[in-house]
Amino acid sequence: MKDKNERLDDLQNGYMLFQNPKQFCFGIDAVLLAWFAKAKPGERVLDMGTGTGIVPILMKARYPKGYFTGLEIQEESADLARRSVAYNKLEQDIDIVTGDIKEAGAVFGGASFDVVTTNPPYMIGSHGLTGENSAKTIARHETLCTLDDIIAQAAKVLVPKGRFYMVHRPFRLAEIMSVMVKYKIEPKRMRLVQPYADKEPNLVLIEGLRGGKSRIEVERPLIVYEKTGVYTDEILDIYGRNHEEKL
Amino acid sequence: MKDKNERLDDLQNGYMLFQNPKQFCFGIDAVLLAWFAKAKPGERVLDMGTGTGIVPILMKARYPKGYFTGLEIQEESADLARRSVAYNKLEQDIDIVTGDIKEAGAVFGGASFDVVTTNPPYMIGSHGLTGENSAKTIARHETLCTLDDIIAQAAKVLVPKGRFYMVHRPFRLAEIMSVMVKYKIEPKRMRLVQPYADKEPNLVLIEGLRGGKSRIEVERPLIVYEKTGVYTDEILDIYGRNHEEKL
Repeated sequence: MKDKNERLDDLQNGYMLFQNPKQFCFGIDAVLLAWFAKAKPGERVLDMGTGTGIVPILMKARYPKGYFTGLEIQEESADLARRSVAYNKLEQDIDIVTGDIKEAGAVFGGASFDVVTTNPPYMIGSHGLTGENSAKTIARHETLCTLDDIIAQAAKVLVPKGRFYMVHRPFRLAEIMSVMVKYKIEPKRMRLVQPYADKEPNLVLIEGLRGGKSRIEVERPLIVYEKTGVYTDEILDIYGRNHEEKL
Repeated sequence: MKDKNERLDDLQNGYMLFQNPKQFCFGIDAVLLAWFAKAKPGERVLDMGTGTGIVPILMKARYPKGYFTGLEIQEESADLARRSVAYNKLEQDIDIVTGDIKEAGAVFGGASFDVVTTNPPYMIGSHGLTGENSAKTIARHETLCTLDDIIAQAAKVLVPKGRFYMVHRPFRLAEIMSVMVKYKIEPKRMRLVQPYADKEPNLVLIEGLRGGKSRIEVERPLIVYEKTGVYTDEILDIYGRNHEEKL
């Protein structure tokens, strides 16, 4: 069931995940997104560009009464995700769909999800690339879809007052906010992630509300390391809290 | 030269400032804005809604080779500002104009400034007001002009690649960024100000570039207090650095 390049990793929340280090392995950004996002019982959650399905599987552990769909354009990643779902016996509640984010509205129909999560490619276009289109490249660079595509499609598939959760890089923040406002997914909550208390942030977590009013809560920064190699209590808490939430 | 309700305060940078505590006295936000903003020798700087002229006077001390204009709609505040300018013998380099921000483009003409600074009213419309229109109300609430008005006029008076510096509240951040992008004053640098290292920010400093490309540098947060009543070294440095900069 596991190819020679693959790993089967223990997520420490009761579930396992197939990954192929030659392609792409999840990082702290996926873990933080799955922790920042919330799903109420019965809600339908779409993860756009799900890769190996890490975000739906982490969220399913925290929110067992949610229904999750992962949309992924790369067949190899989608295949890993499907095998992880099957291995964890989550086929009833997590559906992995091979497809293009740019067609999410057409594939799923309008107002078909209560929540959208996304950990999209951070880099603009093919900036700094040499023409290859590997799994890693597609996961990291906007070669197949742009931020505008993602937010436009999220606006289509979200119900009114549906929630949008994204992790991204702070250098795109002005574009993120203006595109969200353009598609009427109003930014309502933001948390910057800093490697250390005295360093600039290198990730941003953002929550939007479809059709919400203009007012954002900027939370205190999330600090990753207390000092070199030592996580802060909050990060340890997040990694330890991949289990079911008390809702 | 000083009315009975007025104070003549020492700015600790060689200059004095007339203020009337019954109207409005400057706060840390004006000091931080004057520190965050930069002016190169010979640049023309417009402060929109200058009040008692605190921002141009603080910036003049740091950037003695700049030319400053303060635009203020309230005659009483403009009068205090003019008297402070005269008292400090700065009439050659600081001009206080009584007028409406909404007409800045018409008053000064297009592309007439290299830099715009503004510490605008933070509160939306007349939210929470009882109908009075005092100096304090006008300074704090958008009764006479909106964020959109300010940024639209800044875009008119700025030269191409001119810089825009604003201090505001984080809860308006999504609106700030989307309106700046709309008027092509691209957000390029942002610093959130937190009262304490572990508290959410209560001010945001933002720099925009007229006609700039989309990419923002989100700096590490500026922390005000080390502990109750004790400023951080960085804040002490800012307060102590109201003197001339070595450019």
